[in-house]
Amino acid sequence: MVRVRSPRYGRKLDDFTVGAVYAHPWDVTVDEGMLALFAASFQDALPTYASRVAARSVGLRDRPVSPLLLLNLGISFSVHDVSEQAIAHLAYTDVRFPAACYPGDTLRASSLVIGKKPVSTGDKGVVHVRTQVVNQDGLLVCSFERKALVPPGRVAERPEDAPHAVAQPDAPPGRLPKELDGPLPPPARQGGFACAWDDFEVGDVITHEVGRTIGDSEHMQLATLLRNSHPLHVDEQYSRSSSFAKTRVVHGGLVLSWVLALSSRDTAGCGVWDLGLDEGAHPSGVLAGDTLFAASKVIAREEAKSGAGSVTFRLVGVKNTPPRALLDQGADLFTPELGKAEGRVKEKVVEITRTLLLRRRS
Amino acid sequence: MVRVRSPRYGRKLDDFTVGAVYAHPWDVTVDEGMLALFAASFQDALPTYASRVAARSVGLRDRPVSPLLLLNLGISFSVHDVSEQAIAHLAYTDVRFPAACYPGDTLRASSLVIGKKPVSTGDKGVVHVRTQVVNQDGLLVCSFERKALVPPGRVAERPEDAPHAVAQPDAPPGRLPKELDGPLPPPARQGGFACAWDDFEVGDVITHEVGRTIGDSEHMQLATLLRNSHPLHVDEQYSRSSSFAKTRVVHGGLVLSWVLALSSRDTAGCGVWDLGLDEGAHPSGVLAGDTLFAASKVIAREEAKSGAGSVTFRLVGVKNTPPRALLDQGADLFTPELGKAEGRVKEKVVEITRTLLLRRRS
Amino acid sequence: MVRVRSPRYGRKLDDFTVGAVYAHPWDVTVDEGMLALFAASFQDALPTYASRVAARSVGLRDRPVSPLLLLNLGISFSVHDVSEQAIAHLAYTDVRFPAACYPGDTLRASSLVIGKKPVSTGDKGVVHVRTQVVNQDGLLVCSFERKALVPPGRVAERPEDAPHAVAQPDAPPGRLPKELDGPLPPPARQGGFACAWDDFEVGDVITHEVGRTIGDSEHMQLATLLRNSHPLHVDEQYSRSSSFAKTRVVHGGLVLSWVLALSSRDTAGCGVWDLGLDEGAHPSGVLAGDTLFAASKVIAREEAKSGAGSVTFRLVGVKNTPPRALLDQGADLFTPELGKAEGRVKEKVVEITRTLLLRRRS
Repeated sequence: MVRVRSPRYGRKLDDFTVGAVYAHPWDVTVDEGMLALFAASFQDALPTYASRVAARSVGLRDRPVSPLLLLNLGISFSVHDVSEQAIAHLAYTDVRFPAACYPGDTLRASSLVIGKKPVSTGDKGVVHVRTQVVNQDGLLVCSFERKALVPPGRVAERPEDAPHAVAQPDAPPGRLPKELDGPLPPPARQGGFACAWDDFEVGDVITHEVGRTIGDSEHMQLATLLRNSHPLHVDEQYSRSSSFAKTRVVHGGLVLSWVLALSSRDTAGCGVWDLGLDEGAHPSGVLAGDTLFAASKVIAREEAKSGAGSVTFRLVGVKNTPPRALLDQGADLFTPELGKAEGRVKEKVVEITRTLLLRRRS
Repeated sequence: MVRVRSPRYGRKLDDFTVGAVYAHPWDVTVDEGMLALFAASFQDALPTYASRVAARSVGLRDRPVSPLLLLNLGISFSVHDVSEQAIAHLAYTDVRFPAACYPGDTLRASSLVIGKKPVSTGDKGVVHVRTQVVNQDGLLVCSFERKALVPPGRVAERPEDAPHAVAQPDAPPGRLPKELDGPLPPPARQGGFACAWDDFEVGDVITHEVGRTIGDSEHMQLATLLRNSHPLHVDEQYSRSSSFAKTRVVHGGLVLSWVLALSSRDTAGCGVWDLGLDEGAHPSGVLAGDTLFAASKVIAREEAKSGAGSVTFRLVGVKNTPPRALLDQGADLFTPELGKAEGRVKEKVVEITRTLLLRRRS
Repeated sequence: MVRVRSPRYGRKLDDFTVGAVYAHPWDVTVDEGMLALFAASFQDALPTYASRVAARSVGLRDRPVSPLLLLNLGISFSVHDVSEQAIAHLAYTDVRFPAACYPGDTLRASSLVIGKKPVSTGDKGVVHVRTQVVNQDGLLVCSFERKALVPPGRVAERPEDAPHAVAQPDAPPGRLPKELDGPLPPPARQGGFACAWDDFEVGDVITHEVGRTIGDSEHMQLATLLRNSHPLHVDEQYSRSSSFAKTRVVHGGLVLSWVLALSSRDTAGCGVWDLGLDEGAHPSGVLAGDTLFAASKVIAREEAKSGAGSVTFRLVGVKNTPPRALLDQGADLFTPELGKAEGRVKEKVVEITRTLLLRRRS
């Protein structure tokens, strides 16, 4: 008799064991091609990530892999074990990049199940994981927590796992690669973007004027390249019946990357490193053809070291209407959507807190 | 008097000489960018091709270029001399990858005309070629035969060829790079995909659940990158009048790559090398916007060496309907379409036999 | 009180100072990924730019970055300071590539304001700049002049510039990398494309038969990768109100690249280097979905050195109708559109003069 199998991956609520660590099976060498495909969608003005000269001028041995690419790889690698059945991605917290990853490094990721609970309606649950991305030497290059909404029960057709004999350190270490620990040497060049640490004051609001329309092919290429295996992003047949939008939806990590890139000429042009992301959420979904825009609010500014300081921004991404127009209409752009009693901004697609190490002029 | 030329390439039936070898003019260094663009469309779970760590753990000096990319380059390089006038690509046979190609290698290809004959209607013909892809040292990295349907007569505007003083070895050598000849060392990592050699039994059918919708830009980018010069894939003006579909059609080598990638988490996650493809055909064409799915049937399993064995799959690719649904409707999925008296599966876009070297658990 | 800023970049007519040099802030390492993305849109037959073997055979140390990619980077890097507010790109002149750029080089660009003047209607002006692209050692790898049509007045929300303490040499040096100065060694291979220096005669017209349809994602990816920051290419919301086409328009440097690539099998298959482009203009715009075609006319042929000679082509790009059909209808294809009293070719999207160093058979 013919044995017909239809393997499915990801987990439903009862498939998760609190305390378990899943070693995600993907094993990928990051190369210059990935960097270019990332740069072809996300026009990031932060010099360290784009220029070997700029990177070496701050003490790194080469141009590092963009932290946002690492975050996207971490999320995507984890889909196979964590969220391939998920209904929604709910939150990012405590995202950090404690060491530089370079092209040529080979990456893996694992996820620790921190918690899980059914939602009050009882027909689904929230799972809370911490994902860590390490290179071929076991060096931690990205760590973050996220929450996802998953269906109840179990995935019937899930093949038995290969052994997951991995452990995660209890708390990930600092927020800055060790190469960037000392005082910051002066910039390697004349000219450059205008927005140094000195240019920001707490309370400043910046509406970033240029938007980016999302291409149908490009978001699928990125999801595929990242090894994101959720059919919602690339399988139109699945999406017609199973997507809230009745069509393919852009992977949230890409939406976040677009919004950070759109803000970058105004906020990160004198940037040196991403000190972390926190309190991130996706209030609504994005489709191919949507145009994304960004706005930033300065919520903290601190001296960090000789030649540089940190600035913390609250970043908001919206679709199809420039944020300046929304502010003119009185939109409450920077209050988190979750828990808003009124004034929900239906155009909002992402909100997150980002801390950057920026060069100082003074 | 003005001399107006309108050069055209490829060959019609009378342009082919049996026994001739055409040295295709393309001369291309394969780089990490090509690997990434390939990985951005084809999410392949086979670790050797994606991870330098995994590749070195089996004895290769670096992550090799995906065999499927080599096959695609070979087909595409040959279009200029062989199939730029072709009406259809009919068959692939005896595809093998006897040596590893690495990023940085520079590739050329040549095609030997094995045979040609008019079809019975007399208004077209079938040409049968063997194409070989070699690196800068003349090392054979890919060999295959294919058949194409071409118009009768000659291409009037074809410029005279540069000399083709190349020879092909009579029969291509083995199916495995010499670095992989010895016993297979244990895997380099904990965890990984579940489907080892031990998990397959002859007769097993696997329907791969996730599909992939094809982007308009991405399939044109790949055809262009591969140096496929047939206007059917990228020239909408040509295609409106000359394509069977009245629009651009996705290059068949890409369709094959999508279908193999869609099957890969369930069949190739413990894969080490592609031992060959055979008896491949494209029963119908694929357009941008179509969603591809795959199904596999295990047709042979053999012990090959210490730590690994070979499994031979019959793979089928279909469009816009998941294979599980087709099987539920009683579709005869795994019988070749050519020569079927009845029960033709109109959704089928590719069928091929693939042999993989897979790790064993036992 | 909240300070809301909406920074805008580029310059309007009164923002330009004749004699000023703007050091563009982008600082980008060119990598194999950029080369592959470029090759995935522009199928260029010129061997030097695609093959390490071919490049080394003429004395270069590696496969160089395509000159057309350098020109595109130069134009795009300058948008932030020069043309982000521009209404139209009017002309390219004196484009040259005096040194080879290799993958791994880090590029910057600067623009010297050569002149500016209001147009007669008084509601806009023309700015004329010379842009230079240099590598990490200050070596000039691309120089060109261009003219753009800009609005009158000033950009109110433009942040104050970082200091631009850069100087440009008065006149860029030669047209050939020093590695290519000596006699040309024979080709590294048997076979290759047919069109050597010997095959062209002044007055020859060549209609290139295969067209290329432009993908929506791919042209946005390229504009983003190049760091072109004009919203016209990627921001559909902006374009609906501010584009002449009421939708996104393809960056002209890409249109030029497509047209040169479409001509390349017939003109550049025996090419060694681009000796320069001149008298270039874009008579009309191109949108995603348009199909581009090319035609060439030989306007000069000279002996240049042992083994090679130069050929100068007048190249024309048209959209959605093959040039052979336009010629059959009596179109005056090779007369520049600007200043034509009658017989304007409305399908024409680019025209430019290109000089190539080509191998000789004799």
